[in-house]
Amino acid sequence: MLDVCLLGTGGMMPLPKRFLTSFICRLNGKMLMIDCGESTQVSLKMLGWGFKNIDIICFTHFHADHISGFVGLLLTAGNSSRTEPMHLVGPKGLESVVNSLRVIAPELPFELIFHELDNSINSEIRIDEFEISWLQLEHRIPCVAYSINISRSGKFDVSKALNLNIPKSSWSKLQKNEKVIHNGKVYTSDMVLGEQRKGIKVSYCTDSRPVQGLPDFVRNSDLFICEGLYADDEKLNKAIEYKHMLFSEAAKIAKQASVSELWLTHFSPSLTEPREFLNVATDIFENSVVGYDRITKTLLFN
Amino acid sequence: MLDVCLLGTGGMMPLPKRFLTSFICRLNGKMLMIDCGESTQVSLKMLGWGFKNIDIICFTHFHADHISGFVGLLLTAGNSSRTEPMHLVGPKGLESVVNSLRVIAPELPFELIFHELDNSINSEIRIDEFEISWLQLEHRIPCVAYSINISRSGKFDVSKALNLNIPKSSWSKLQKNEKVIHNGKVYTSDMVLGEQRKGIKVSYCTDSRPVQGLPDFVRNSDLFICEGLYADDEKLNKAIEYKHMLFSEAAKIAKQASVSELWLTHFSPSLTEPREFLNVATDIFENSVVGYDRITKTLLFN
Repeated sequence: MLDVCLLGTGGMMPLPKRFLTSFICRLNGKMLMIDCGESTQVSLKMLGWGFKNIDIICFTHFHADHISGFVGLLLTAGNSSRTEPMHLVGPKGLESVVNSLRVIAPELPFELIFHELDNSINSEIRIDEFEISWLQLEHRIPCVAYSINISRSGKFDVSKALNLNIPKSSWSKLQKNEKVIHNGKVYTSDMVLGEQRKGIKVSYCTDSRPVQGLPDFVRNSDLFICEGLYADDEKLNKAIEYKHMLFSEAAKIAKQASVSELWLTHFSPSLTEPREFLNVATDIFENSVVGYDRITKTLLFN
Repeated sequence: MLDVCLLGTGGMMPLPKRFLTSFICRLNGKMLMIDCGESTQVSLKMLGWGFKNIDIICFTHFHADHISGFVGLLLTAGNSSRTEPMHLVGPKGLESVVNSLRVIAPELPFELIFHELDNSINSEIRIDEFEISWLQLEHRIPCVAYSINISRSGKFDVSKALNLNIPKSSWSKLQKNEKVIHNGKVYTSDMVLGEQRKGIKVSYCTDSRPVQGLPDFVRNSDLFICEGLYADDEKLNKAIEYKHMLFSEAAKIAKQASVSELWLTHFSPSLTEPREFLNVATDIFENSVVGYDRITKTLLFN
């Protein structure tokens, strides 16, 4: 199972009850974050998941409202006894931006490992159990959407394992796709696991205009998190000018992509009560939720 | 009169109910800030003084908990229609640090004017009505204390102005220390103002061990804001190691310097309820206050 949470749901500036955009998910004690605006660590403190096990931070782009909380978070992770390397994923320029910001945090007790994304339309890296793919978006500066996939092995077939005389002490290794050698014979997981089962897919898209490949990229997500800087369709011209999306545009993508659930996020500071506009989204895609800080859910393997 | 407020009273990391260290004061609509840790702008939003008129930001030093909220604040000031230059004051390296941090905020609608402090023991600059002096402290990196002085002219002597036949329409100029020419004669404020009256002095000291010149530097302050990272005297070794102060050390300086009031700030995250240790300070200096976020006061000219 994968715990997911929106740590912040605001765009542009942090507000007392709406911090800047950040998403976090947790799988078997390891955490992956996407974006880290100012006050993200305050929200994470409220959530109570701790700071030590943030293993991966992905950045959609380098506008301040998506990264201004990052340096403080690094220091807090260090003060929380983190010593393992932290993986950073983001568009080209990531290492240079991070090194500039670290002028006020030059010393850390852990290493940073950079994964700069190339310009291919759609690609993938795997870190621990997180399969991370991305898609180029259309914003004022280079920006990517992310899809986080947690794959799930096939079911362990006990009768096959018994027939092959594999000792029970080795079963767990095969379940984790590890190789087992017993009495000189090599056993691999494909000998005892059934067909691969459906995993969990979470997609995250902000900041962008709707782009052509987006519905395919987020298709069948268990959860699709998408920006809705503007709630009202009358703000279309502003959305086009500043390269953002309307609630209705996010909902159309959710519908087209047959996702299970849509969470809207990244609201304009001028949008005082985004939840009042819920029906703008649900009229198009029923399973829409207007996000709020620390909205949390546990996604299960089906 | 001068409105003063502690926007944040935390050291090291921002907490849900205690943001990072920042002080702000307001005089005739103009604002001066000292330090700007993460979430400072959230606290300022709560306070409701606005973002447009932050004219001066002074930095004590460049540890992240004193500057990590600065770039976001710059952008918010820009989005609040600020176009006038903003003055930045801080130790040597200020411009380089600020320019590094601005990698995520390269464009602003206003100019930044840098005032890098030299290594003299005690000096002063004046920006608008704020007279800013500083003192080198003893921390792990170069760090300064600030003293903000608002001077007050002598009382306007109506009988002198009448005797000199100065027209009433020119009185306000003389009150503001401006020169007046009337019927070919030059009149200056010293002709009509009494002796200079006591102004307002606010001093701010964090992060440091107690240094020799500090009591003289903060002497007779109407308000002395001083760090107390550790409340308990048993933490003396830690205070010495990390170059910080105890509540009792701050209170001793307040007493020695004959200040009117002491506000403690910059508490360790491990200090859950700093107010429980109030007596540690009041036992030494009675008019001690354990600060909290958005503690506010209006200091009057006496």
